[in-house]
Amino acid sequence: MNQSPAPLRLGIAGLGTVGTGVIRMIQTHGDLIAARAGRTIQIAAISARSRNKDRGVDLSGYAWEDDPVAIARRDDVDLVIEVMGGEDGPAKACVETALAHGKHVITANKAMLAHHGQAQAELAEAHGVALRFEAAVAGGIPCVKALTEGLAGNAITRVMGVMNGTCNYILTEMEKTGADYADVLADAQKLGYAEADPSFDVGGIDAAHKLALLAATAFGTRVDFDGVVTEGIDKVTLTDIHDAADMGYAIKLLGVARMNADGMECRMQPCLVPQSSPLGQLGGVTNMVVIEGDFVGRTVYAGPGAGEGPTASAILGDVVDIARGLIIPAFGIPAQHLRPAIRSEGGAAAPYYLRLTLADRPGTMAEISAILGRHAVSINRMRQYDHADEAAPVIIVTHACDRGALDTALDEMHGSDVTLSAPVALRIEEL
Amino acid sequence: MNQSPAPLRLGIAGLGTVGTGVIRMIQTHGDLIAARAGRTIQIAAISARSRNKDRGVDLSGYAWEDDPVAIARRDDVDLVIEVMGGEDGPAKACVETALAHGKHVITANKAMLAHHGQAQAELAEAHGVALRFEAAVAGGIPCVKALTEGLAGNAITRVMGVMNGTCNYILTEMEKTGADYADVLADAQKLGYAEADPSFDVGGIDAAHKLALLAATAFGTRVDFDGVVTEGIDKVTLTDIHDAADMGYAIKLLGVARMNADGMECRMQPCLVPQSSPLGQLGGVTNMVVIEGDFVGRTVYAGPGAGEGPTASAILGDVVDIARGLIIPAFGIPAQHLRPAIRSEGGAAAPYYLRLTLADRPGTMAEISAILGRHAVSINRMRQYDHADEAAPVIIVTHACDRGALDTALDEMHGSDVTLSAPVALRIEEL
Repeated sequence: MNQSPAPLRLGIAGLGTVGTGVIRMIQTHGDLIAARAGRTIQIAAISARSRNKDRGVDLSGYAWEDDPVAIARRDDVDLVIEVMGGEDGPAKACVETALAHGKHVITANKAMLAHHGQAQAELAEAHGVALRFEAAVAGGIPCVKALTEGLAGNAITRVMGVMNGTCNYILTEMEKTGADYADVLADAQKLGYAEADPSFDVGGIDAAHKLALLAATAFGTRVDFDGVVTEGIDKVTLTDIHDAADMGYAIKLLGVARMNADGMECRMQPCLVPQSSPLGQLGGVTNMVVIEGDFVGRTVYAGPGAGEGPTASAILGDVVDIARGLIIPAFGIPAQHLRPAIRSEGGAAAPYYLRLTLADRPGTMAEISAILGRHAVSINRMRQYDHADEAAPVIIVTHACDRGALDTALDEMHGSDVTLSAPVALRIEEL
Repeated sequence: MNQSPAPLRLGIAGLGTVGTGVIRMIQTHGDLIAARAGRTIQIAAISARSRNKDRGVDLSGYAWEDDPVAIARRDDVDLVIEVMGGEDGPAKACVETALAHGKHVITANKAMLAHHGQAQAELAEAHGVALRFEAAVAGGIPCVKALTEGLAGNAITRVMGVMNGTCNYILTEMEKTGADYADVLADAQKLGYAEADPSFDVGGIDAAHKLALLAATAFGTRVDFDGVVTEGIDKVTLTDIHDAADMGYAIKLLGVARMNADGMECRMQPCLVPQSSPLGQLGGVTNMVVIEGDFVGRTVYAGPGAGEGPTASAILGDVVDIARGLIIPAFGIPAQHLRPAIRSEGGAAAPYYLRLTLADRPGTMAEISAILGRHAVSINRMRQYDHADEAAPVIIVTHACDRGALDTALDEMHGSDVTLSAPVALRIEEL
C-alpha cells in the first residue's frame, strides 16, 4: 500500500456554478482529497462556452478546449465531469464520447440521464468504466450512494423525496407568510431561488427527473421518466395549505416511488404529509429523501439540494470513489439486468384530502356522503367551515381508497348540483 | 464484465440478534445482493456459544466452529463478520487473527474499536484487507459511509449525533408522559429498550464509543475514547425537560465532535437543542447523525439505530462494498496518517441553560447577574417561575460563554447564600 498510484486526471466540461465549485474544492482540499482517495486528483483540461469570464478561480494550469467533446477524447483525461446541463446536445455528445473512449463520467445532469440513462449506463459498462450521478439527485445529500451501497442488502420498498428547493421554498413561504403562489414565486425569482422561466421547477419536471433516477436505482428497473405521474405546485392554493394545516398536514411537492403488486408507481405531485413528520417539518430550500428497505426500515437523508458547494461535494464524492477503484454499474446492478419498468395501473390505495364547495342547502352533506359511499370511499375526518355566502367549504380526509373510484365519485359530484366548483383532491402520503 | 467472479465467502462469529439477522438477510435476498455485489455472497462458517439454540434460521449448510478464532483461520473464509461484542476477549482475538490471516473484517463492535481501533486499522492495512464498521455507529444509517465516501471532498467542521436509542426513548417519554427518570427507565427495561444493567446506555458510554469512531473518521485523528467528555442522562430531571421546553428547547443526549483552533472537542452529554430542529424533533429510539462539511453545509441522517434488521442492513452494505472490491482504510485515510487527537482545552464557547434556585429575598437577582457579569457570562433570556416557598426557580439562557468562566461563576454563586441548591448548567448546541 506504499506505492504512489498514478494521479486521476479530470476533464471538466462546463464552468458554471457547479464546474467552478468542483475546481474550487479541488484547489482548496487537494491534499485532504488525495489522502482520502489514495491518489492525487489532477485537473487536466477544462471547457466552457466563454473562456474569458472571471470565475474567481485560477484556471491557468489547465488545458483549455473550446469543444467539450474534445475533452472527452483527450489522452490525458481519465474521467470527464459533465456539468453543462441540457438533456441532449453537447452534454450528451461529451458524455457518450467519453464513455466510448473508456473514460469514467460523472454528471449532474438529471435531464440527460432521465432520457438517456439506460443507453449511457450500457455504454459505460461495455467499456468497463463508471457513470456516476450523485450530484444529479438532491445535491449534496449522498442518497444515491445510500441506495446503491449502504442499503444494498435490502429490497427497497419505497423511496420518497422533496427534491426541488424552489418548490419547497414557495410552499413553505406561502404557509408562513400567507402570501399567494404568484407573489411568493415573484419574490423567489428576485432572491434567485427560482428561474425567470420557472416552469421546469414549479411544474415538477426537474424533481420528476430526479425521482426517475432514484426509482431505477431503488428497484432495478430501466429509467422511465415518462412513467412518472407529474404535477406541479402552481395549482396549490393558500386555502388548501391552511385547510391541510388545520387537519395536521403540510403540503409538499413529494416524489414517491414504490413497487406495487402490479408494477411500479412513480408520482411527483403535491401531497399532504403529517406536519409532525420529518418531511412535514422540512422548510425552505432543503431537500429530503426517505428510503425504506425491508430490513433497515425507514431512513431519512436531508441537506442542501443545490448550490455550488453541495453539488461540488457530491461530485467529489463520486471522484473519490472512482479514484479508489469503485467501478459499479450506474444504477447499482448491470444495465442489461435492469428490468423494464412495468407501470402500476392506478397505483396503491391512499387516503385523500378533499376540498369541496357545497351548495348551502339541506341534504347536500348526505348526498356527498352517499356518492362517496357508492364508490367505496369512506370518510375518516370532515370539517365544514363557517361561511357568509351560499358556498359551504368542506374538507374531508378519506380513508385509503382507490384513486380511480375517487375520481369517478368526484366527477359524479361535480356533475350534480351539490358542489359549486370542481372538487380538489390531494393524496395523503402515509408515513 | 461477463465472467463470474469467485464468490465472497463469509465467516460469522456470533449468532445473537445481529448475526442471525445477517444470515436471514443473505438467505432472503441472496440473488438481489449478488446482483448488486457483482458476485455471490456465501456463508462458509459460523460460530457461537451455543450450537443448539433455535434461532429461526436454517444453519445446516454452514460449517460450525466452537471457537470464533477458528473461523478467522479457515481457508474457505474471505471475510469475517464479528458480531459477538465485548471490547476484549474472543471478539478481539477473532478480529485480529482474521486480519493477520489476510481476511477482511466487518464488525459491529464499537467498544472494541473505541479501544483498539487504531491498532486494528493498522493491522488491516498491513495485510491489505478492509476493516469496516458501519453497523457500529447508528445502526442502519449509512453515516460512516457518508463521512468516508459521500462527503470525502469536504473538510468536516462538526459531527453530531443522537446515537443511543435507549436514552432518547427515556428523554422523549419523560417529556411526553411527565413520568420521572426512574419510572421511565423501569418501563424501558420492561419493553426491552433498556438492559437490566442500563449503565452502559444511560451513562453515555455506548454513545461515546460511537462518537469516538465518528470523530476519528471525520477529522482524520486516532480514535480517542478517553478524550470524549462523557456524561449520562441519569441526572436530567423532569423540571429541566419542562423548563427547557418552555424556552424552546429539547434535551437530548447529544454527541458533538468539532475541531477547535486548539484541538478536538468531543462531548457526549445531555444538551439543549432547538425544539424545531431535526434533532429536537427526534423521538423514540430513532438515531440521528448530523454531518457538517465546509462545502456541503449541513447534512442530516436518521433511521433505526439498533435491532436485527437495521444492524444486518449496515453489515450487508459493508459486505457488498468489499465484494465489489472497495478496500479503503478503516477511518477513511491510512491509519499511519491519522494524527494524534489533540484535545481542546475547555472547548468552544457555547450558550448555556442554567437552572438556579434562588433565595426569595430582595436583591438576589442583582447578585446573580453581577456574579455572571464579573465572569463575562451575559444573559440572553431569563424566566422566574411562580413559587410557593422560599425557593425561587429561575431559568437563564446565556449568550455563548466560556465553560470554565461559567463554572467559576456557578461555584461562586453556590458558595454564597443566594442559591439554595447547586445550580444546573446544560450546554445549548447551536444549530
